Amino acid sequence: MQLSTFTDYTLRVLMHLTAAQDQKLTTRQISEIHDAKFNHVAKVTQWLVREGYVSSTRGRSGGLHLIGDPSAITVGKIVRKLEGQDGVAECMRGDGGTCILAPSCELKSALHDAQEAFFRSLDNKTLASLTNGRIDPLLRKLNQSIVT
Amino acid sequence: MQLSTFTDYTLRVLMHLTAAQDQKLTTRQISEIHDAKFNHVAKVTQWLVREGYVSSTRGRSGGLHLIGDPSAITVGKIVRKLEGQDGVAECMRGDGGTCILAPSCELKSALHDAQEAFFRSLDNKTLASLTNGRIDPLLRKLNQSIVT
Repeated sequence: MQLSTFTDYTLRVLMHLTAAQDQKLTTRQISEIHDAKFNHVAKVTQWLVREGYVSSTRGRSGGLHLIGDPSAITVGKIVRKLEGQDGVAECMRGDGGTCILAPSCELKSALHDAQEAFFRSLDNKTLASLTNGRIDPLLRKLNQSIVT
Repeated sequence: MQLSTFTDYTLRVLMHLTAAQDQKLTTRQISEIHDAKFNHVAKVTQWLVREGYVSSTRGRSGGLHLIGDPSAITVGKIVRKLEGQDGVAECMRGDGGTCILAPSCELKSALHDAQEAFFRSLDNKTLASLTNGRIDPLLRKLNQSIVT
């Protein structure tokens, strides 16, 4: 049971931007911190801009900036948006996949309920709560080291 | 967020064996019903035998048989056993994966709690509850058609 790499990177980018506060970071800087392919991170930041979570400005002093209050953005909402369309098993996707039991299977609704329980648990966590505490100083240090 | 193919097939095999009741099915019969590779299903049935969920007898009248009461075997226990060791994100696996935030990240425990919520939701479902109702006649028909 795994989140997609896209969701994983989305959460990392959001955490960095939350800790960065007024400091702007670029996609390249974030991809370098995570030793991740630029194109992968760029797709994530494009999605975040399109969904209205992040603003992006060009130029020397440009970069990415979190829109909105990180204490009001829940992890559940983001993960649900990214993962909620895909079922956790083949039978939950599109036309039921190849499973011959799919049209009348009780497992499908059981897995759907379990997936909802997963999302609901993350509805209690905000970007602010993730970056408070131990991780905040680490992120700030990383952000500063790449900006300066 | 996807269950592994191994877990998916494990649940399908268990549902077939639950509906089969005293009728014995073979790995080959189940793999043919699902148009799945024999080797994949064989690995699943070997695991089920090793874990004590299924007995396997050889010979002309041999086959697989569910051990225990299907109303006492929860889906949560099986899925937790198969998926509980692997985290839903790279940072939860082994040594924290490649994420530099892993050692002090709050996201890890949030995802762990969400995964537990997923498993707990499936603790309310038993093999018997999955195969009751609409799916039971379908499974019986399939089982009969391959045994006779």
